[in-house]
Amino acid sequence: MIVAEVPLKVTLFGEHAVVYGRPAIAFTISQKMLVKVEESDRFEVISNNLVVRGLRVLLDSYTVYSEEAKRVLRYVEEALRYFGAERPVRVEIESPVEPSVGLGTSAGVVVGTVAAYSRLLGYRLSNEEIARIAHEVELRVQGIGSRMDTTTESLGGFVYFSGDGSVEKISPCGLSFSAGYFRRVRTTAETLRIVRALRARREGLIDKVFDMIKEITDEGLKALKACDEDSLGELMYMNHALLSLIGVSTAVQDELIARARELGVKGCKLSGGGGGGLTVCLEDERAKSLLKAFGANLIDARPTDTGVIVREVLT
Amino acid sequence: MIVAEVPLKVTLFGEHAVVYGRPAIAFTISQKMLVKVEESDRFEVISNNLVVRGLRVLLDSYTVYSEEAKRVLRYVEEALRYFGAERPVRVEIESPVEPSVGLGTSAGVVVGTVAAYSRLLGYRLSNEEIARIAHEVELRVQGIGSRMDTTTESLGGFVYFSGDGSVEKISPCGLSFSAGYFRRVRTTAETLRIVRALRARREGLIDKVFDMIKEITDEGLKALKACDEDSLGELMYMNHALLSLIGVSTAVQDELIARARELGVKGCKLSGGGGGGLTVCLEDERAKSLLKAFGANLIDARPTDTGVIVREVLT
Repeated sequence: MIVAEVPLKVTLFGEHAVVYGRPAIAFTISQKMLVKVEESDRFEVISNNLVVRGLRVLLDSYTVYSEEAKRVLRYVEEALRYFGAERPVRVEIESPVEPSVGLGTSAGVVVGTVAAYSRLLGYRLSNEEIARIAHEVELRVQGIGSRMDTTTESLGGFVYFSGDGSVEKISPCGLSFSAGYFRRVRTTAETLRIVRALRARREGLIDKVFDMIKEITDEGLKALKACDEDSLGELMYMNHALLSLIGVSTAVQDELIARARELGVKGCKLSGGGGGGLTVCLEDERAKSLLKAFGANLIDARPTDTGVIVREVLT
Repeated sequence: MIVAEVPLKVTLFGEHAVVYGRPAIAFTISQKMLVKVEESDRFEVISNNLVVRGLRVLLDSYTVYSEEAKRVLRYVEEALRYFGAERPVRVEIESPVEPSVGLGTSAGVVVGTVAAYSRLLGYRLSNEEIARIAHEVELRVQGIGSRMDTTTESLGGFVYFSGDGSVEKISPCGLSFSAGYFRRVRTTAETLRIVRALRARREGLIDKVFDMIKEITDEGLKALKACDEDSLGELMYMNHALLSLIGVSTAVQDELIARARELGVKGCKLSGGGGGGLTVCLEDERAKSLLKAFGANLIDARPTDTGVIVREVLT
């Protein structure tokens, strides 16, 4: 059996603006998904942990249909197909977190399947090759999509996406983060629509917001390289205010972040698509208490420097 | 006795940015201060309503010193001196609200004293002349200062300050507002310092924030002229997000505004210096309920079109 350990990722700067060609920064965290691939007599996908939503059950045959499961299946299927789907395999996916909260679980399925299945077939891909193939697979499934999640989870560490296609990896210094996720009240697709509609109404203004997010992201890159916690935190609050401006935050996230700021937590922001989902702060016990008090599910958001790892396990 | 009725004012767009040369919009509301001037055998200032803070009492003489009272006194004194302080008068000030919450009570003292005392001396000043003299008096006391409050309270209605010194008055259409004020946790001077320090650290970024506030204010002027409530409200939320970005909001105000937005209230923002003080929303019963629930003192924020009025009253 081949096991791919895929680190989950957190977006630190630039979400939404990245859709409009601006840069973004994401980093891998200590929590991991496992994608296990082993030879089998038939093609099979199993997941005990990925919470499945939107179930539909056919009572005559006890068949369960799930859009979420179908989506995961399509990622796995397309990843296998990339390599010709030469051998029937059993793919088992274990995730420590719910899907669609902004931690890159969809990308994790693709990266993990590409990494593990390619090894089963005898290939020894570099992490850069895994990143490239995983993005290609994602594009085949989704039609469009940012390379941010698949690249970050493949390479590990802090990854800066310049907006013109180039990628820079920054190794973590001593900085750490506290984070948790809320139930989402809007899907990423919905928040993307909100932003698109707002931009259609007020193009000049919203493009200026994106330009400011670009500047914050670029300043964030400098702060990361200098390991300057004060500057990084201030920029996180600024980026959050602009995400709130474009309407992708929720009252609970705005409240949590306002309280954290007033308490003296150095930096906090929503992370990912918004409308609930992930909120990330510079590491602080008070931030953890606030996240819990406001009802978030805490995660282990300590940064790591390692991307996907593949192990061979004797069964 | 001469009574000047001075409407209080609410800042709708552009606070803080106006200090750095960008435009702003303020409007007068139904609540009024009264400044009563009558001849007397000595110079006397009385105020039953202006809450006085920072008292110091000398026990040997029962003398009370108050910085707040001294400040009010200096405005009155300087206004009388402008006209040569020809006759000893008794000046009585009645304010329906606490000072320093962003409703222009300091300017109201100046405008009211200028308007009433000049009439007592037999002058018949136009509202434009009162505006000019009141600003001149304010400058003599403060050294620096925006003409926004004195001009708005003198002229009445919605007043747009272009940033290059010109002023445009817009008559209110059917739009109305709900507003309330919180105890301030920072003075205006402190919030001005916060912004100055932030701008010193991140000049390019903060100047871009001010440019965006300028654009929001100019769009707000268009929305006012078109009486477009939806657009105006959206711009109010945007302006608030930028005030939050520069660090002059409080958690309570951010929370209230986030909840109002989520409830569907069309527009809300902090108003004035921030750090507590005034919060203004487009008129909405739900906004009033939220303001009360969060502990604000509600005010009557219906716009008026009339500036300071002077009446002669037989005593």
